[in-house]
Amino acid sequence: MSGSDNKVLFERIALIGAGLIGSSLAHVVRRDGLAGHIAVSARTQATLDKIQELGLADSVHLDASEAAQDADLVVLCTPVGVYGDIAKAIAPSLKPGAIVTDVGSCKQSVIDDVRPHLPEGVHLVPGHPVAGTEHSGPEAGFAELFEGRWAILTPETDTDEDAIEAVADLWRRAGSFIEIMEARHHDQVLAITSHLPQLVAYTIVDTATGLEDHLKGEVVKFSAGGFRDFTRLAASDPVMWRDICLANKDAILDILGRFTEDLTALQRAIRRGEAKTLEESFARTRAIRRGVIDAKQD
Amino acid sequence: MSGSDNKVLFERIALIGAGLIGSSLAHVVRRDGLAGHIAVSARTQATLDKIQELGLADSVHLDASEAAQDADLVVLCTPVGVYGDIAKAIAPSLKPGAIVTDVGSCKQSVIDDVRPHLPEGVHLVPGHPVAGTEHSGPEAGFAELFEGRWAILTPETDTDEDAIEAVADLWRRAGSFIEIMEARHHDQVLAITSHLPQLVAYTIVDTATGLEDHLKGEVVKFSAGGFRDFTRLAASDPVMWRDICLANKDAILDILGRFTEDLTALQRAIRRGEAKTLEESFARTRAIRRGVIDAKQD
Repeated sequence: MSGSDNKVLFERIALIGAGLIGSSLAHVVRRDGLAGHIAVSARTQATLDKIQELGLADSVHLDASEAAQDADLVVLCTPVGVYGDIAKAIAPSLKPGAIVTDVGSCKQSVIDDVRPHLPEGVHLVPGHPVAGTEHSGPEAGFAELFEGRWAILTPETDTDEDAIEAVADLWRRAGSFIEIMEARHHDQVLAITSHLPQLVAYTIVDTATGLEDHLKGEVVKFSAGGFRDFTRLAASDPVMWRDICLANKDAILDILGRFTEDLTALQRAIRRGEAKTLEESFARTRAIRRGVIDAKQD
Repeated sequence: MSGSDNKVLFERIALIGAGLIGSSLAHVVRRDGLAGHIAVSARTQATLDKIQELGLADSVHLDASEAAQDADLVVLCTPVGVYGDIAKAIAPSLKPGAIVTDVGSCKQSVIDDVRPHLPEGVHLVPGHPVAGTEHSGPEAGFAELFEGRWAILTPETDTDEDAIEAVADLWRRAGSFIEIMEARHHDQVLAITSHLPQLVAYTIVDTATGLEDHLKGEVVKFSAGGFRDFTRLAASDPVMWRDICLANKDAILDILGRFTEDLTALQRAIRRGEAKTLEESFARTRAIRRGVIDAKQD
């Protein structure tokens, strides 16, 4: 689909932040010529240098408000914890009719943190491309990251339809499917599909790290038994995940509670040697795997 | 290395059980001509038919003792829970000097369950190839499964050196590296690198399965956020894992206890909004990932 009918979707796109997701999106916009001008802002000159070296920006800026100046679309691609500060900083530069979107893994906090700062006539369309790798930084990005994945948009009910459609169009060009849902519902769903797995992966690797030294080396050596899949997840960006934990606290604590109950029940079955309970419990989960394969999300 | 100096290592090899590991080993033995005769036994005729269709056996047997008759090497490839019964059944057929090994994921239980049944002059060399996929059954096997992976052997201190070397040779021909360690130590190490990740994966998928229906469908749909990695593990054979839980109970309960403590500490940090604790904890785990990549177990 992508590349078949290239046309400029936005005169000027400003990407605020250029990590894995921001740089991947820049690759898409560049490849398909979706913007007349790509302005990229980042916190460090090193990141901006890398972005220029990769040919991903028409202009680079240490000052986010400079990048956002006259932009038709502003995409927040930083950890979610700084969205509020950024919104405040760029607000005076935003032109009437500009659209602000983002790529964060929790969505109600975007509405709470960003919306109050935006001037009248600027549209907020929170977004979340459900895609990623364990790598971080501008050099980790690639245009195909979003292909066949979902991009979830969580606009409020009174949001301008054209603005929603414009953001949806961008993700369609990236090869994603579009899903629109309520922000709080998104946060509940992602707490289980993404945040809980991530926290469990961090914890399991942390538990291994806390072992006696003579065991620790062997844990790495024999990691092919299952552990290595967790180390992949646990290599994700710590600041990004810190912010997600703080911003989606309620949904995460709820799902952690359920998980702990289920794990305790399993532990009890092992201690009591309940063979039948164990086998039945392990057999149940195969159907879900089948569903993931059928949904082509594997 | 494999294929470069093909020679018969054993006149007759008997594989008891022909799932993923058993059939993969049969592929290796067949490919490199490591046995004069491959005898395979399985619980069902369907499995034996499949093994014959794949050309992996010179003889197939529903009766394990028939397969083990006159074998130089007997490899137990069933779930560990039936090892004791099999050892008892094949004992009268074992010839003096025969070697019995296995491929199970816990090792002290092999010594406890198998050793008492073996006649004088038969050598027991418990083994564990640390390799696998989420697929099960004879058609899932392939010769390359063990390449670059570890094969851990856990013989007792008085075990015949030639017998240990013969089993090590087989795994070297499969492309594996050999590690020799004490059975209880193996069980501790694997409890963290394999059993804990597996149980956590089962539980996380189980927690998702227990959600309200309107959430459940979305969990599969948006599984690319991390969840799908767990569904892969959770698709593993339920009976195999039931038996591992029962056979390695003490080490598993110990590591589950540590994991739960660590998860509770994380949960507490989230509830209290302790940003610094969260970031530091998430940053620590990156080094372990680096270790896994360096150890070429990724």
